[in-house]
Amino acid sequence: MSFPPQQPGNQSNTPPSEPDDLWEDLDRIPTLKSSISKNEIAVDLPDDSTLEGALIALLGEDKVNFTSSVLSTHSTDKWFASSAPDVVVFAESTEDVCKVMALAHDRRIPVTTRGAGVGYVGGCVPVKGGIALSLARMNKILEISPQDGVAVVQPGVITGDLQNEARKLGWEYPPDPASLKECSIGGNVATNAGGPRCLKYGVTRNYILGLQVVLANGKILRCGGRLHKNKTGFDLIGPFVGSEGMLGVVTEITARIIPKPKARGMLAAVFPDFSSAARTVQAILQAGHLPSALEITDAFTLAAARKRLGADVFPPGDGHLIVEIDGRPAAVESELKELEALLKKCWAGDIRIAKNDDECEAIWQLRREFSYSLRDTGLTKLNEDIVVPRSKLVELVDFARLLEKETGIAIACFGHAGDGNIHTNLMVGDYENPEVRERADAALDILFTWVLEHGGAITGEHGVGLAKKPWIRQALGETSFEVHRTLKRALDPQGILNPGKFLDD
Amino acid sequence: MSFPPQQPGNQSNTPPSEPDDLWEDLDRIPTLKSSISKNEIAVDLPDDSTLEGALIALLGEDKVNFTSSVLSTHSTDKWFASSAPDVVVFAESTEDVCKVMALAHDRRIPVTTRGAGVGYVGGCVPVKGGIALSLARMNKILEISPQDGVAVVQPGVITGDLQNEARKLGWEYPPDPASLKECSIGGNVATNAGGPRCLKYGVTRNYILGLQVVLANGKILRCGGRLHKNKTGFDLIGPFVGSEGMLGVVTEITARIIPKPKARGMLAAVFPDFSSAARTVQAILQAGHLPSALEITDAFTLAAARKRLGADVFPPGDGHLIVEIDGRPAAVESELKELEALLKKCWAGDIRIAKNDDECEAIWQLRREFSYSLRDTGLTKLNEDIVVPRSKLVELVDFARLLEKETGIAIACFGHAGDGNIHTNLMVGDYENPEVRERADAALDILFTWVLEHGGAITGEHGVGLAKKPWIRQALGETSFEVHRTLKRALDPQGILNPGKFLDD
Repeated sequence: MSFPPQQPGNQSNTPPSEPDDLWEDLDRIPTLKSSISKNEIAVDLPDDSTLEGALIALLGEDKVNFTSSVLSTHSTDKWFASSAPDVVVFAESTEDVCKVMALAHDRRIPVTTRGAGVGYVGGCVPVKGGIALSLARMNKILEISPQDGVAVVQPGVITGDLQNEARKLGWEYPPDPASLKECSIGGNVATNAGGPRCLKYGVTRNYILGLQVVLANGKILRCGGRLHKNKTGFDLIGPFVGSEGMLGVVTEITARIIPKPKARGMLAAVFPDFSSAARTVQAILQAGHLPSALEITDAFTLAAARKRLGADVFPPGDGHLIVEIDGRPAAVESELKELEALLKKCWAGDIRIAKNDDECEAIWQLRREFSYSLRDTGLTKLNEDIVVPRSKLVELVDFARLLEKETGIAIACFGHAGDGNIHTNLMVGDYENPEVRERADAALDILFTWVLEHGGAITGEHGVGLAKKPWIRQALGETSFEVHRTLKRALDPQGILNPGKFLDD
Repeated sequence: MSFPPQQPGNQSNTPPSEPDDLWEDLDRIPTLKSSISKNEIAVDLPDDSTLEGALIALLGEDKVNFTSSVLSTHSTDKWFASSAPDVVVFAESTEDVCKVMALAHDRRIPVTTRGAGVGYVGGCVPVKGGIALSLARMNKILEISPQDGVAVVQPGVITGDLQNEARKLGWEYPPDPASLKECSIGGNVATNAGGPRCLKYGVTRNYILGLQVVLANGKILRCGGRLHKNKTGFDLIGPFVGSEGMLGVVTEITARIIPKPKARGMLAAVFPDFSSAARTVQAILQAGHLPSALEITDAFTLAAARKRLGADVFPPGDGHLIVEIDGRPAAVESELKELEALLKKCWAGDIRIAKNDDECEAIWQLRREFSYSLRDTGLTKLNEDIVVPRSKLVELVDFARLLEKETGIAIACFGHAGDGNIHTNLMVGDYENPEVRERADAALDILFTWVLEHGGAITGEHGVGLAKKPWIRQALGETSFEVHRTLKRALDPQGILNPGKFLDD
């Protein structure tokens, strides 16, 4: 395949054209004869260009890289798997993405889309090679409109940057994954990212009002818009949010923003044991409070924290709870008092109260210290973002204690108690050592089986990727797995989008 | 086709079996050889039973009705279209629904699922005949669990009943469509129903954690569960919520409930004109308030209300705004004061303040009087649930005034200002009169075209059904329409689920 009549140099300098023009433009590329309604498309054009050559001809040299160092940095995320792509494309516009997908569709080349590359499950590892499609350069906040209550952003925007910009205007983008200073909003959409404040505010999906998606065949799909209600047809946004790059490439996001709560406050307290902290979670909600966060911590993690921070950092006790509330200043003030009384009734000791942003930040810092304390152990932390029905927090942690005894692998539990989303961290030696890995995976297998038998989920925030792939059929059941494959085949009949992941054998 | 070895009489009396047993049970019915992964299934079994006979054999006589009066009551909803089914099935369990779908799939018989039948767009009108599948008897609240923060319900449960039962336990199911005393939660799922409180609390989709769905071929799909976060695979709940009975039959719903806010309060005020009321909406949000509802009303509606309730019911003024807030008692008290001051600055007159449930109810009653006042005109109200970006409320109402002038059709606008979801009511004579209808449809065409050109949506709450079908391709655009059809073909390859609606020519 060759690419007349376009000149590669001009291509990359042309400003993105309007949708209709773009269509005409792309129609001249012989790859776009296909339709997603056909199940298999056999395009067999004469082609003497290499993949790299074809991409450079389409996009210009700036956007195409196949040096070994760049391939290497695009081989992994924060999980353990590594696999190099053949080439990395740095898309700068939706038009670029359309061109890449049209070419990939024509030649059946794997395309693994990548945001900031900070996922925890190997979701963006290009296990089948081909093109690693980086959206890191598409990092513009296009608009924040308090009038319409929306932010329009490119997928490479760092989540924390969007939050900061919205706050400057007195508005808030609520989803707050722990990695918000380094993760991209596109990655958040790909994994339907959560965070501590989901209890009150919900996950990423709840804030996505509109998407622009480049489909497997290079066509542009627009769903939703800057509207807070929309019942025009099916909810097409739903399938793309959380699809881990397997159904399309999101190139623009319209997110809902809300008026920033005027005040927040926090309480942090030690409890005699984990189960009294868990009971307090139920008592808080049953008393009519809807905190923005409810973070619980187990004895193992507290012991590690005492080791790091000093034994007297908290009084004795094997459970810890953080409660964050927000709202109008008068409400936060009176609610803090009510919650303090409630916590005392629930055997809380050493209640620390934060009444302003700085004091709250200090408590969140303590929460982060829990993670650092686990790192101090020198062990590798397999952070499993398990979810159980909220009433089963204690059962989960009791089971973790049993599993620890049985396997000899230490297990630290802490996380978002209000959601039942407890990060269950298996602390192992060197996970890349096959023997250690086998033992750890066997323990994970027992854990996940227990979780599924108790109505839980094997992932609440991180996604499936490669890490959870061995358990996905068990987790979904056969009918759901079949429907997943049906949906995937319908939208990506050639299986070029992020292949080798959880729907492939 | 015949149905040995099962005995029809026994069938309907057997308690619903467990999923696995059910599968084995259903596997004995020769219709279930198919898989949704095949695109077209040609089953050609010898068959000498009538449709009615086959259904009675499968389900028992109690659940199958083809008397003319029952066919007639299952021919319509609250819109204008009417078309009788060949038979009405009153399913009492998921197993019943599986059997109906297996038979329908085998014989390619249209199935139009029906909740309470109170939709506004003809969505459940069985335009292609076949089976009207009523879920009205599946009306049990199976469980309300504050511990897990969920309610598990059958689709025929009336939304208001679920709300009342949750409130008795101090919990709340927030979505509140205006028809909540008569609509079913299954219908709410089918249309992703909204309501006034969506500004703060979001639409139905935001409260659906789990679904049990019978697919077109009779298989049972389970998505999600009693979990507040779940990233296991794609979001399969999304496509079914709002799918208007075209992708599957929802037979069980696990909904999120939240602690009931302890207090609420309201303000209602008259404004000199609509645009000052709309500006006040922006001022309220920009000041950091997130009301549960913000309801705006135009001059036409106010004039009708004055006619009904007496000229002195409010002082002169051509705009009206209702603000509802909820939360902790101290917060509501202080926020009412802040909002009163803000409203005064925005030229509000005659500010009425409600500080408890009864006083709030009285203001909502006034809101309902607006609807009754329009009914008093004797005209037919074409209630179009248009949405525009929130900043375009004034433009929309100005355009409605122009349209009124041009067409001679009076237009009353009121609705959910915070969402930009303004019910734009064309007040016409007899819509069933072809001449009137042609004029009204021409006016709707102008209105919808304007809305779409201004980034809006032609439906925010009611769905597409038959009423909005003529405009759906224009509203979605060709790529989105094609993706809709692809999704529909993937999940319902024979097109038996609610055929004749917005994806069919």
